[in-house]
Amino acid sequence: MLNQIVDNSYEKETAQAGDLAALASTKTNYFIFRLEPGGLFQTHRGVIPHDQLIGMKWGSEVLSHKGSPFYLLKPGIYEILSTTKRNTQIMYPKDIGFILMKMNIGLGTKMIEAGTGSGGFTQILSLMVGKEGHIYSYERREEMTNLARKNLAKIGAPENVTFYNRDIEEGFDQKDMDAVFLDLPNPYDYLAQVRSALVPGGQFGTLLPTTNQITKLLLELKRNNFEFIDVCEILMRFYQAEAEKFRPVDRMVAHTGYLIFARPINRLDQSNE
Amino acid sequence: MLNQIVDNSYEKETAQAGDLAALASTKTNYFIFRLEPGGLFQTHRGVIPHDQLIGMKWGSEVLSHKGSPFYLLKPGIYEILSTTKRNTQIMYPKDIGFILMKMNIGLGTKMIEAGTGSGGFTQILSLMVGKEGHIYSYERREEMTNLARKNLAKIGAPENVTFYNRDIEEGFDQKDMDAVFLDLPNPYDYLAQVRSALVPGGQFGTLLPTTNQITKLLLELKRNNFEFIDVCEILMRFYQAEAEKFRPVDRMVAHTGYLIFARPINRLDQSNE
Amino acid sequence: MLNQIVDNSYEKETAQAGDLAALASTKTNYFIFRLEPGGLFQTHRGVIPHDQLIGMKWGSEVLSHKGSPFYLLKPGIYEILSTTKRNTQIMYPKDIGFILMKMNIGLGTKMIEAGTGSGGFTQILSLMVGKEGHIYSYERREEMTNLARKNLAKIGAPENVTFYNRDIEEGFDQKDMDAVFLDLPNPYDYLAQVRSALVPGGQFGTLLPTTNQITKLLLELKRNNFEFIDVCEILMRFYQAEAEKFRPVDRMVAHTGYLIFARPINRLDQSNE
Amino acid sequence: MLNQIVDNSYEKETAQAGDLAALASTKTNYFIFRLEPGGLFQTHRGVIPHDQLIGMKWGSEVLSHKGSPFYLLKPGIYEILSTTKRNTQIMYPKDIGFILMKMNIGLGTKMIEAGTGSGGFTQILSLMVGKEGHIYSYERREEMTNLARKNLAKIGAPENVTFYNRDIEEGFDQKDMDAVFLDLPNPYDYLAQVRSALVPGGQFGTLLPTTNQITKLLLELKRNNFEFIDVCEILMRFYQAEAEKFRPVDRMVAHTGYLIFARPINRLDQSNE
Repeated sequence: MLNQIVDNSYEKETAQAGDLAALASTKTNYFIFRLEPGGLFQTHRGVIPHDQLIGMKWGSEVLSHKGSPFYLLKPGIYEILSTTKRNTQIMYPKDIGFILMKMNIGLGTKMIEAGTGSGGFTQILSLMVGKEGHIYSYERREEMTNLARKNLAKIGAPENVTFYNRDIEEGFDQKDMDAVFLDLPNPYDYLAQVRSALVPGGQFGTLLPTTNQITKLLLELKRNNFEFIDVCEILMRFYQAEAEKFRPVDRMVAHTGYLIFARPINRLDQSNE
Repeated sequence: MLNQIVDNSYEKETAQAGDLAALASTKTNYFIFRLEPGGLFQTHRGVIPHDQLIGMKWGSEVLSHKGSPFYLLKPGIYEILSTTKRNTQIMYPKDIGFILMKMNIGLGTKMIEAGTGSGGFTQILSLMVGKEGHIYSYERREEMTNLARKNLAKIGAPENVTFYNRDIEEGFDQKDMDAVFLDLPNPYDYLAQVRSALVPGGQFGTLLPTTNQITKLLLELKRNNFEFIDVCEILMRFYQAEAEKFRPVDRMVAHTGYLIFARPINRLDQSNE
Repeated sequence: MLNQIVDNSYEKETAQAGDLAALASTKTNYFIFRLEPGGLFQTHRGVIPHDQLIGMKWGSEVLSHKGSPFYLLKPGIYEILSTTKRNTQIMYPKDIGFILMKMNIGLGTKMIEAGTGSGGFTQILSLMVGKEGHIYSYERREEMTNLARKNLAKIGAPENVTFYNRDIEEGFDQKDMDAVFLDLPNPYDYLAQVRSALVPGGQFGTLLPTTNQITKLLLELKRNNFEFIDVCEILMRFYQAEAEKFRPVDRMVAHTGYLIFARPINRLDQSNE
Repeated sequence: MLNQIVDNSYEKETAQAGDLAALASTKTNYFIFRLEPGGLFQTHRGVIPHDQLIGMKWGSEVLSHKGSPFYLLKPGIYEILSTTKRNTQIMYPKDIGFILMKMNIGLGTKMIEAGTGSGGFTQILSLMVGKEGHIYSYERREEMTNLARKNLAKIGAPENVTFYNRDIEEGFDQKDMDAVFLDLPNPYDYLAQVRSALVPGGQFGTLLPTTNQITKLLLELKRNNFEFIDVCEILMRFYQAEAEKFRPVDRMVAHTGYLIFARPINRLDQSNE
């Protein structure tokens, strides 16, 4: 679903067959699909044939057969994440953006992710680390690995992702990873495995919804000689985009999860052992 | 200062001459410098010769000649931004991370930034868009462009950045840009220029500290046919990393700026003109 | 509706005819009504005769004829405000509580409120200032004053409230008031009137939803020699009350209004005039 | 220190000997003291004799002998709490205001407070419940009870406060209290005592800084048959009061404590016992 995004540059001003496209009347009435000759976009607000959209300039207004107006937009990571946000498993852009910055994930990063889940975060990581980087993605549940594989196949099965269908209790196959991100409920059970997969001083991160999980994790981080621990949360507040009545919107998301980051270190008394 | 980051992968477990390194005793007592044979790290807590660090494993504890302990760490974008955060001009990781996600900035993005400032954000953008992308960075003040050039020279003068020392009142040289980010106090004065530089439906973003600026901008966005306007702010709250006394820290940053995003669209009645 | 509250002390352990009572299964399934011999409590979860409740201990569990459990509770200000919160005109407890503290409203305060609205805030103020204090409540719309009168009649028409059905453009009848609170959209139009009603250095407060209103107000406050201006907002975040899964609830109210407070002062150069 | 506040009404426009007064040049340069004939107000910005202030209108500007301007203000609860806020034991107005609303504390409330501490909250409670109400304040540490007694003596030793110098492990002397507020680190140890002091269905409240304390408390609340549990936190954000540059201030208090409220109930199966 994301491969259009990898081709990040708008080489053409106009929508092409095969492009990922969005038709939107408002930010919340937002539909993402792939343009196919002969295809039909259908909502209760009317129908628009894909052939009418192919060749049209991005950003154009277009009317359904019922006369309802839509704009033809090129969707980005943010819109794709936002339109699928009903799946509570999926991480929010506010959190993902900060994780990338905090864990120094970018071109060339080699890292481990577990669990894979449906592969949403995997796709973004794959996009960010590029050909020079690599994502090793572990998942215990076979059906999830299969789903993620299928999702990544849709975007051309990027070569910088390797899946493992395995319980990480057994440890990771990699050493000297730049970063390890655990997206599972009990990261505190796998810190020895994380430590032996990470480069010395590397980046560990996780996201947890409850404070109970965090207190368990903090204990284990200390026991496993992780330091430079950061625990934080990111609150995002939207405003009404009205010049004469500028004010926050009435309601907001109050919680997605706490973010925890740490780095394994080697104490002098350890190295003496 | 950032070139070590571009080389994002830890190819070696040990610190090498020429590497960007950090010596840190705590998150706030954090020093970033480049390792040079014969160099000296000096603080009031003691001295450590670079030659002692070169060849040492990352993440190791090391003592100054006074016996003060430090950890040798490989610094990332986040730490570099955080240690220079006293310069209020510099954007915060929480905002940068979200801007990247929201504006779909990644491998291959071709975009405009104005003003350049000291080039901090330029460096991060350069890193994120890679060789396939390009950053066109405009700045009116000659001394700032020179400073930014010098800062980017330090990291090897990446070929994906082009500087312009010019008032953007005159417009941009580019067309069909994926994104335009304005980091200046009066973005509302340049929306026509932004519009003609952006690909149809492309990504516009800016960061403004006051609500007065936002209300002016909202009026101009409407007048210039931008839609899908998002105004938001990101609040970041840190917690004490103590397992037995888990709680937020006492004080936090309450405001960096409001983020505003929009996309230029073409209405049907416009296209008929 | 609030008179039970004025009788704040639980003189009796058991519910009495005439008491304001609540039947609640959860915090959100909360019904407030007055106990009347022969009365019937009816919901889709079943019926409970008031006579069954009269004489029952507060805090007791009681079953409807369908077997649905409820608790019999004595409702307080908070529950009454919360159950009527769908009326967006009504101020939130988080804001009211702070207003009382900030404006030093308590036993003996003599103050003006405008507009009266449906009299909800009037009732709370009446309760807080007691017999030694007084509330002078102004409202332009006759139907609102009548509604407020009727609402206060229900709680015994406290003698410490006087209503005025009048446009405050004409000014207030009072002088030397301890405090003036304006709950109307254009407080900036009435600052001269506020100033002449307040005791020198007295407390002025208002609540406004948009930043546009605030910037207008700030200009007028300066022009009318108000100082010690405070502008703030109060964010309230609830947590799931689960010991093993302690975390914030998913969503929260993001905005009710900005609170603005100021005090009229007399500059030396003014007094010389 | 608070007795001027009890006399809440500004009966006179001018400052009188014996009045609690404030001299303030800004909100943070704020001095509170009692006016005494012959007294001297002294800061590094100059001296002002009390005799010059006695008889002066509240809200007036006055110059020190060095020419520094101050305003003469009547301080309220808020200013008194704010100027003493460096003592972290003292609760914040944002929290106190909400506690009063949530626990329905007002004229006539009869309630227990423990521990007394320095008596700051005791004084506010005493003020709010009036002559018809009563505060029973328990404290284990004798020196704190003595300090609180002394502090309350200064404001005329209100008759509606009774102190107990005793460990609440032994229980409270009162029954059928409207409310019990525990301001101590281990409220979870005293819920049986709270329950037997409260009227059925009455109001229990506490303030705790860490999530560890809350999870312990939640377990005990369930075990002791408390329901209608609310856990929340109140965030307060101030804005720069500048009309042309309206924006939040740079930094804020991120945490004072979590507020927890609950009511003891009687389940049907209990009453059958």
